[in-house]
Amino acid sequence: MVKQDRAIRTRQTILLAAAKVFEERGYQAATISEILAAAGVTKGALYFHFPSKEHLADGVLHEQDHRLPIPDRACKVQQLVDTVVLHAYRLQTDPMVRAGVRLSLDQQAQGLDRSGPFLHWSTVGVELLEKAQAQGELLPHVVPAETADALVGAFAGVQAMSQALCNYQDLPRRVSALLRHLLPSVVVPSVLAAVDLTENRGAAVQTELETAHPLRPAPVS
Amino acid sequence: MVKQDRAIRTRQTILLAAAKVFEERGYQAATISEILAAAGVTKGALYFHFPSKEHLADGVLHEQDHRLPIPDRACKVQQLVDTVVLHAYRLQTDPMVRAGVRLSLDQQAQGLDRSGPFLHWSTVGVELLEKAQAQGELLPHVVPAETADALVGAFAGVQAMSQALCNYQDLPRRVSALLRHLLPSVVVPSVLAAVDLTENRGAAVQTELETAHPLRPAPVS
Repeated sequence: MVKQDRAIRTRQTILLAAAKVFEERGYQAATISEILAAAGVTKGALYFHFPSKEHLADGVLHEQDHRLPIPDRACKVQQLVDTVVLHAYRLQTDPMVRAGVRLSLDQQAQGLDRSGPFLHWSTVGVELLEKAQAQGELLPHVVPAETADALVGAFAGVQAMSQALCNYQDLPRRVSALLRHLLPSVVVPSVLAAVDLTENRGAAVQTELETAHPLRPAPVS
Repeated sequence: MVKQDRAIRTRQTILLAAAKVFEERGYQAATISEILAAAGVTKGALYFHFPSKEHLADGVLHEQDHRLPIPDRACKVQQLVDTVVLHAYRLQTDPMVRAGVRLSLDQQAQGLDRSGPFLHWSTVGVELLEKAQAQGELLPHVVPAETADALVGAFAGVQAMSQALCNYQDLPRRVSALLRHLLPSVVVPSVLAAVDLTENRGAAVQTELETAHPLRPAPVS
């Protein structure tokens, strides 16, 4: 058990180092030697967990996909909003999430399948929108797959714009504006009126999660 | 005059070669030697027009910003839509536009100011939205700067998603879906009902421009 804990911790250390190196250098330019130096583990340990640079990148992409616990809400539109604003909050504060998003937008990452995060988030969006639809929260014409794709694509660009203009300083404001522009064409007005789309929602959800699970370790995939 | 024409053509040849090399290799990895080889011009000619790699990238970024003639429309919302769908069409067909968009999303392009295209397109959007507002085409609560930023950011991400998933094959469909999601919260319903948001609008606008200006040369900035 202790041994397994150590292996999990080593894996996390390596992934975090890989995330930082990928973020700084880009996928193509990053080398395993740099990741090794940043992680401070043995070559054997690194290759045991990740046999290649592509495996390291897949690991980082998978972490940013799956390390966001989604708080359960009675109103599924609010749950969708919370998922989006929490992701934005983590982008500002968590290098692993940031590196994963950058990798998925890195058009020079040859040989790396970057479709994973787009498809993963679309699936998350479709599931929540279908639940919202079943509860009567959506306007009658809404096609969940189309709306999820529009939201995921739009979010990817809004975060890239915020990064290019001010290194994520204004990300909560931009994400709030995006949601205020997209949701009126998707959500029933009476539901929308009760949904919290304000800029500080992401930080509030993060605080709520930390309070509920004060010792929660980083999820291991 | 003939001499000037030749200089303009050489400059365009160099920029197109730079666009292709940046698109394939990314800003950081691309070298002036590669661009020189792709352009087939003398070293002297290249350095005369562009003294550094950064100048070449700025040239490409500026071209993608400014080579899109925007057709004038009585309905300013339609003009905004046409600007967006024409940009999407050119992304599929024009390597210069594609390279410019990729450069502006290349987070590894150190030392390159990538804010230009975002700010340029926001300004274009604000101007059109203010005209639309003055003509009574927009809903009363709309803040043009906020809507323009949401649209520009969202478009950047939707194109990146389409590129990652299928190399732009489904871009017109995705852009049409994005506009159908964003515009109902911005445009007066009676105006929106008359606006063409269909998938083939981009190709139609391109054909219209080519018919109007059959011999129009690529604009030189």
